[in-house]
Amino acid sequence: MKAVTMSGFGGPDVLEMGTAPNPHVGDTDLLVRVHATALNRADLLQRRGLYPPPPGASDILGLEMAGEVVQVGAQCEGWSVGDRVCALLPGGGYAEYAAVPAGMAIRLPNNLSYEQGAAIPEVFLTAYLNLFWLGGLTAGKNVLVHAGASGVGTAAIQLIRAAGATSYITAGSREKIERCLELGAKAGWYYKEGPFAPWVKEQTNNEGVDIVLDFVGAPYFEQNLEVLRTDGRLIVIGTMAGTKVANLDLGYLLRNRLQIIGTALRSRSVEDKIRLTQEFVAFAMPHIEKGTIAPVIDSVFDWAEASKAHAYMESNANIGKIVLRVS
Amino acid sequence: MKAVTMSGFGGPDVLEMGTAPNPHVGDTDLLVRVHATALNRADLLQRRGLYPPPPGASDILGLEMAGEVVQVGAQCEGWSVGDRVCALLPGGGYAEYAAVPAGMAIRLPNNLSYEQGAAIPEVFLTAYLNLFWLGGLTAGKNVLVHAGASGVGTAAIQLIRAAGATSYITAGSREKIERCLELGAKAGWYYKEGPFAPWVKEQTNNEGVDIVLDFVGAPYFEQNLEVLRTDGRLIVIGTMAGTKVANLDLGYLLRNRLQIIGTALRSRSVEDKIRLTQEFVAFAMPHIEKGTIAPVIDSVFDWAEASKAHAYMESNANIGKIVLRVS
Repeated sequence: MKAVTMSGFGGPDVLEMGTAPNPHVGDTDLLVRVHATALNRADLLQRRGLYPPPPGASDILGLEMAGEVVQVGAQCEGWSVGDRVCALLPGGGYAEYAAVPAGMAIRLPNNLSYEQGAAIPEVFLTAYLNLFWLGGLTAGKNVLVHAGASGVGTAAIQLIRAAGATSYITAGSREKIERCLELGAKAGWYYKEGPFAPWVKEQTNNEGVDIVLDFVGAPYFEQNLEVLRTDGRLIVIGTMAGTKVANLDLGYLLRNRLQIIGTALRSRSVEDKIRLTQEFVAFAMPHIEKGTIAPVIDSVFDWAEASKAHAYMESNANIGKIVLRVS
Repeated sequence: MKAVTMSGFGGPDVLEMGTAPNPHVGDTDLLVRVHATALNRADLLQRRGLYPPPPGASDILGLEMAGEVVQVGAQCEGWSVGDRVCALLPGGGYAEYAAVPAGMAIRLPNNLSYEQGAAIPEVFLTAYLNLFWLGGLTAGKNVLVHAGASGVGTAAIQLIRAAGATSYITAGSREKIERCLELGAKAGWYYKEGPFAPWVKEQTNNEGVDIVLDFVGAPYFEQNLEVLRTDGRLIVIGTMAGTKVANLDLGYLLRNRLQIIGTALRSRSVEDKIRLTQEFVAFAMPHIEKGTIAPVIDSVFDWAEASKAHAYMESNANIGKIVLRVS
């Protein structure tokens, strides 16, 4: 089959059109003709050789896709050839075909295109995992979402609103903040104007937030703890600006009963991913069918232009997902 | 009423017999004639002025007691004068009388003395909170318990065994390790012989543990993270040997999906404490009635010798609880 392959590890230019063996289809798997896939920051790391795929996963990039079922494993009840689906993948999305455990397939509603479907799995399941499983999100809670205009950020804002909770966001441009407010964030902070902690305290009448979703890492660590209220949880999804923290006060954690939670979706078991997908579908798909939650797409590239799409993501200009059309 | 009072903040000698106003008894409270109370490390800190009681709590030391109900609030169904109980307190245990919300009272089985009853609430509820609510303990999991021979340590070892899980402990003497093994620990490490991390890995076939219960703090921090397996949780209950950590790697937390959880029982809401007490009673009291879980008492002092009891706790020689008989 055709696939986006790599001539080695490095910058966006190592991506090229090539071929790869067709995926193996087990009895509990669906084989999908991929129509669209989407970029994730993990793809950039993997392309540079900094994030090896987990054992057993494809070497091909791509952690999600949307497409049409072309083969149904013997033990996949309820699925038919021709069904439109999207799903998380452990890798292998930048390809003509992908195999996925049937329990991880999400049925695409009629109102969504394949491009929109490909923009759902990673960001929405990551946001769901971190907000609900790890963050304990319930109605009435306050959440600070860093990188609010990112893929996960835009998904989180919408899930938080659907849960009856409140989100505050940080972002790197006025335009990004505006978009986040449209999606349901209560207020946004332009981080180039200074530290966010005083602003969060002012916004919350000095109460602070119950959950922080962070992708930034070390430079935000101290402020993140500072804005958490009692029993608050700092969910560390990424460490884009640094991993080494030189000043953790365990006594402060105790006194405020704080939790610091490191998290990753890709390395979780298939059983976890199936359970997560099912819970997410039950919670979010009614909203997605009504249009009250929608994947946020920044741009769509043809997969032959994958290197251009990667360079664009590296410029940090996108609001929402960057999608590849698999033609 | 009579009570152990303080002539000021400082060493054990500030403790003296004195008097204090009788506690207020609300409609949902029981008034208890205290027969025994017990020491906690928090008492030592409070005596030194380093741990002020939470707002509304008594200035008198004492976070737990056992005794006989002498007055029943109008809204306390199911309780009678003469009932034998033990309970957590927000303070005020070193006194002739204590008032406690009825939902926090634990009925003492006939096979337990008041001295034994006073040795239950703080250590067993702390262990239950941290193992089950925060640690997610289930059958088959591995737990590392530091200070295994401490009050919370000996309670944790027994709860872990009752849950069908496995405990490894560290302690500061051969005698303490022996006692922990008798209580159900699988193996123990004499910490004066060197770092515990290599030993834990060897004991667990390099798999590591699911939960670490730590009281030591900063000096153990790096090793604690090192011995946690994927999805492992470090529960920080105390920071006896230091609070400042200078080398936290957030990337390591992410890759291994680790959680660092700061915890405290005393500052939790009454609603939390009632729910915790009820869950603990349902899980543990059948074991306590059968004698398969038992409070571990190191020594009993008359309350007139409270300063001697405090000095003894400061020497770190005790195995299990130090109890005060309230005569």
